[in-house]
Amino acid sequence: MKNSFTRRSKSIEPFQVMALLAKAKELEAKGKQVIHLEIGEPDFTTAEPILQAAKAAIDAGYTQYTPALGLPELRQAIAKLYKDRYQLDIDYQRILITPGGSGALLLVSGLLVEAGQHLLMADPGYPCNRNFLRMVEAEAKMIATDHTTNYQLTPQLLDKYWNHNTAGILIASPANPTGTMLNKAELADLAASCKKNQGYFISDEIYHGLTYVTSAPSALEVDDNAFILNSFSKYYGMTGWRLGWLVAPLNAIADLEKFAQNIYISATSISQYAALACFESTTVAILEERRAAFAKRRDYLLAALTELGFKIKTTPEGAFYIYADVSNFTDDAYKFCYYFLENQYVAFTPGIDFGNYKANQHVRFAYTQEIAVLEHAIERIAKGLQHWQA
Amino acid sequence: MKNSFTRRSKSIEPFQVMALLAKAKELEAKGKQVIHLEIGEPDFTTAEPILQAAKAAIDAGYTQYTPALGLPELRQAIAKLYKDRYQLDIDYQRILITPGGSGALLLVSGLLVEAGQHLLMADPGYPCNRNFLRMVEAEAKMIATDHTTNYQLTPQLLDKYWNHNTAGILIASPANPTGTMLNKAELADLAASCKKNQGYFISDEIYHGLTYVTSAPSALEVDDNAFILNSFSKYYGMTGWRLGWLVAPLNAIADLEKFAQNIYISATSISQYAALACFESTTVAILEERRAAFAKRRDYLLAALTELGFKIKTTPEGAFYIYADVSNFTDDAYKFCYYFLENQYVAFTPGIDFGNYKANQHVRFAYTQEIAVLEHAIERIAKGLQHWQA
Repeated sequence: MKNSFTRRSKSIEPFQVMALLAKAKELEAKGKQVIHLEIGEPDFTTAEPILQAAKAAIDAGYTQYTPALGLPELRQAIAKLYKDRYQLDIDYQRILITPGGSGALLLVSGLLVEAGQHLLMADPGYPCNRNFLRMVEAEAKMIATDHTTNYQLTPQLLDKYWNHNTAGILIASPANPTGTMLNKAELADLAASCKKNQGYFISDEIYHGLTYVTSAPSALEVDDNAFILNSFSKYYGMTGWRLGWLVAPLNAIADLEKFAQNIYISATSISQYAALACFESTTVAILEERRAAFAKRRDYLLAALTELGFKIKTTPEGAFYIYADVSNFTDDAYKFCYYFLENQYVAFTPGIDFGNYKANQHVRFAYTQEIAVLEHAIERIAKGLQHWQA
Repeated sequence: MKNSFTRRSKSIEPFQVMALLAKAKELEAKGKQVIHLEIGEPDFTTAEPILQAAKAAIDAGYTQYTPALGLPELRQAIAKLYKDRYQLDIDYQRILITPGGSGALLLVSGLLVEAGQHLLMADPGYPCNRNFLRMVEAEAKMIATDHTTNYQLTPQLLDKYWNHNTAGILIASPANPTGTMLNKAELADLAASCKKNQGYFISDEIYHGLTYVTSAPSALEVDDNAFILNSFSKYYGMTGWRLGWLVAPLNAIADLEKFAQNIYISATSISQYAALACFESTTVAILEERRAAFAKRRDYLLAALTELGFKIKTTPEGAFYIYADVSNFTDDAYKFCYYFLENQYVAFTPGIDFGNYKANQHVRFAYTQEIAVLEHAIERIAKGLQHWQA
């Protein structure tokens, strides 16, 4: 029995937050009440109409595989969403249902990126993206970004970093961990840059719907050939159901179907039937209430953290994260996180989980807790800062 | 926009049966009643106690991510299954819950097989296996097998084909498409051969439970370091729930957890809670009734096909397939399948979907239909053969 596995396996870094979480569990086992601001998952249970639809599907016995591309009626419902939300006519045959946004990322990695190639993406960014590419023996080339570009890629950065091994770019708007967005003009510029370089334009839109200033435009509004990753996890609050979707150009669908048939057969059937209820007005009303709650939490936490001396250099406009510069307090964000967990029982995520650029002076807070809990967290953080600074 | 995608994408062959199925749908749209013997999915709806458990989980609001390794109580229930079914003590921490057997295959491919390496496997075999390996820039080396080795690998074949690029072997017992099994002595010989060559021993056991002569031994009975792929899809009748599991050596779990966290986050939560009911005696009673039904169908179809002149050279002992030699009738199995679909409205799968070795003289029948339907299919096939031979 060998004791080391593939190079691929070694190159996938563990999430640093996991060690922190293990520590949190240890503290909780000792009776400490840890406040969790590290979790990238809405705290709300899935909305009632979606639960009812799931139970109806179970009663109807819809327990077998669905087509690999997903239920046609769900694909059509998503096509209607593109019409309603973005005024776009998207042929439902361009929409694939996937097991979470993760499934969509796997398909796109397999379809578009050769071994040895890379996608350009912003550092900081969603950590899993790199590892989907490692899975297919490709890479993420992480480009350092800061508040001056809203932590987003720009045509200038693409000009600087694009080379013969670049397959395309992967952007996210709203982004994790920064919550920043790209407007339509910025999307158009990035699309033009990809076109000029004959590369793929891949847009992660899984936080669409969870926006608090303006709504987020889709990359499809500026480039009909863009590949769009989306999910029922965030706005629709269906994390545990593992359901997402991919919009792709029509000429890619046959190949994507082959990947889907082979790699996962289909997304969970009951989840797909449940998701049909996402677009009903009663569901949307609940989701919009939740969005309003997220907006209030964001406003509260932004102000409170700023007052404590955290520097939030770009106002997050979407998702449910605040990416805070902690250079007023430390140059070791991981140690800083650990200190607050162990001494004040508040968990948040060190920057290192999102990239390398200035990771040691950033942390991410998720506002996936009620305001009362956030207030309590802020009290603890304030108290901790007194000792930390002393 | 480029019109061709990755080499990886091109190397994944579409299932031939899909073109056949498209034709079947066309016929059905014209009002023809097609009998489907091509489907590798039990015809039974998921058993009632499992459905009830799913609904209870929904009512309890278990709609969020689970740990990446799966619900601890489900992992423990599976550990108990190994005790009850195989008299093996398996630490539940060695058991990972995956999104279907597919998820387990993806993990194993990522963990164990370097780019450029291959796994040895039997031809004919489950077609997706090859493509999981293509996903990670590795390969399946398909070894021609026939009835003389029960369509299974042997130490002699491994000696002949093992080279410096061989990472290990992937066997299946009961196998798809042949339904053949490996006994404990054969498993031990294969394990020893892998050990001698310092390669991984990977065993696909997703049809365990669906056996009609003797029960199938697990590779873990002869090699504690084997990697075991299993699933709730077949015996437990939970295809659409997308739930499987992987048993791995303890020293592989940390790396597998990294893959799971990154590649799919977790399996569907409701599916996992539902699966807890799989091990209740009321459920097992239903599953055993269904197994008895499969056994009767197998007996019927074996005899009836043999009488018609199909050559079934090795009696299938498990799964729900019969792999039949059609060389009495044709040397073009695909054309043969097409003929029976178009003229007799019976669908079955051409050998080419399972490999290359003598694929043109084999077809696969799935007995995932009631006896009455099988009888009807046999009538149609008999009638068709008269015209075909004429």
